[in-house]
Amino acid sequence: MRMRPSMSDLRITGKTRYIPLIGHPVAQVKTPAVINALMAAAGLDAIMVPTDIQPGQVAAYFDIIRGSENCLGCSITVPHKQVARESVDVLTQRAQVASGVNIVWRAPDGQLVGYMTDGAALVAALIARGASPTGTHALVAGAGGSAGSAIAFSLADAGCARLTLLEPDKRRRDALTERLSALYPTLIVETGEPAAGTLEIAVNASPLGMQDGDPLPFDLAYMRSGGIVADAVTTQQITPLLAAARARGLYICTGFDMADAQLDFQMRHLRLK
Amino acid sequence: MRMRPSMSDLRITGKTRYIPLIGHPVAQVKTPAVINALMAAAGLDAIMVPTDIQPGQVAAYFDIIRGSENCLGCSITVPHKQVARESVDVLTQRAQVASGVNIVWRAPDGQLVGYMTDGAALVAALIARGASPTGTHALVAGAGGSAGSAIAFSLADAGCARLTLLEPDKRRRDALTERLSALYPTLIVETGEPAAGTLEIAVNASPLGMQDGDPLPFDLAYMRSGGIVADAVTTQQITPLLAAARARGLYICTGFDMADAQLDFQMRHLRLK
Repeated sequence: MRMRPSMSDLRITGKTRYIPLIGHPVAQVKTPAVINALMAAAGLDAIMVPTDIQPGQVAAYFDIIRGSENCLGCSITVPHKQVARESVDVLTQRAQVASGVNIVWRAPDGQLVGYMTDGAALVAALIARGASPTGTHALVAGAGGSAGSAIAFSLADAGCARLTLLEPDKRRRDALTERLSALYPTLIVETGEPAAGTLEIAVNASPLGMQDGDPLPFDLAYMRSGGIVADAVTTQQITPLLAAARARGLYICTGFDMADAQLDFQMRHLRLK
Repeated sequence: MRMRPSMSDLRITGKTRYIPLIGHPVAQVKTPAVINALMAAAGLDAIMVPTDIQPGQVAAYFDIIRGSENCLGCSITVPHKQVARESVDVLTQRAQVASGVNIVWRAPDGQLVGYMTDGAALVAALIARGASPTGTHALVAGAGGSAGSAIAFSLADAGCARLTLLEPDKRRRDALTERLSALYPTLIVETGEPAAGTLEIAVNASPLGMQDGDPLPFDLAYMRSGGIVADAVTTQQITPLLAAARARGLYICTGFDMADAQLDFQMRHLRLK
């Protein structure tokens, strides 16, 4: 039987490196437990620490960690992904296109390098569930957020033929449509309601489903039989959307699946593997 | 064989509180391992994290933790104790008198309360070793630093009759002499060399002993037979000073003894017990 890591197993010395996971709030985050277990299993003397940071203090906090010699980097969750993107020193190509970053690596000289892996993680999770985005018609709800736009770009990268963007903020929706069309000229980008029974893939990247009584983020009648519904919400494994999708006989991909897929990216970009 | 950890394997959660131990560098700190074990044993979901902070960034970092809702407080080591004292919102009476703080409690409204317990810990450690400061002649080497001045005040509090202050910085030495004389009118404060065989207690609060080849911080010929020599240096348990004291048949009190005595203060002031 596998032993569970406990607080007392974390042998923290002055030489232990730390990786803050910043958000506001942070009570909902689940990554630190898993990353800490992975790092412990790999014999790495490092720890991920949930760290509540006020909106408006992210740039100041990054100034601190630039100088913090035992900081390996930073993991970023809502609502800090956008401002984190503005506050790092170097952006990877994917992060330049995206509207946020979710991982920051601190180079030994203190430079901060920003990554956005939400999209790649979603695609990896879909593929792990047996789906293949190539040639499909996919929908992203909440496409204007930093996770949503990263997911849209990664679905386009993975060869989607047609992408429907649901985003209530017209400015964000238009900006994303323009950037996608510029980068993927053969991709059909739509913002209207899809026809019933047409979607192979639908992803919720909006916060709908985090609160009791939220409406579903989109109508499941859009889905084609045999399609897959993914939800980035992680407040529970089977969200109301996923429960409804399963009840219709659709495949599902949970926020936990996405989070599991993120782990490899986190470990790699933080130079932990 | 170990299974790959997954999102359902939760231990450090988003609800875990953190206590940075700030210093520059931090590789030498030993408190986190012990405090973390104590907190785990007490069932507290909190973790102390060694956090390197550049000189000049302490005030900015305190601004961050004021707003960081899962931060319980902060432990402070060299060289940040003085600037930490200037950067908190409230100072306890002891910290007002001292020239630094070593523990900061974050009140639920974000206010930072500064404590200085280096002196109280030294006196507690001396008493645990069977010494009684009342009526004694004591010496503090490195009396002008924040630990040294706190130790001088605590020895005065504990009823020392005569206190010899060794401190190369004349301004610091004079300022401390003045503050001690004002608060303890019956205490005899001296800054000259004590007569041979007169000291019951001698404390090294200077950094001498951290580097190979350092001279001893004071001449052990000052000590009375049966006296006790304490050393705040924690790079090793038996410093050259303590080894020489033991060779003369004197009692000793190590930096580790002081650090052990600090734990109660840390736990209490951080509201962990």
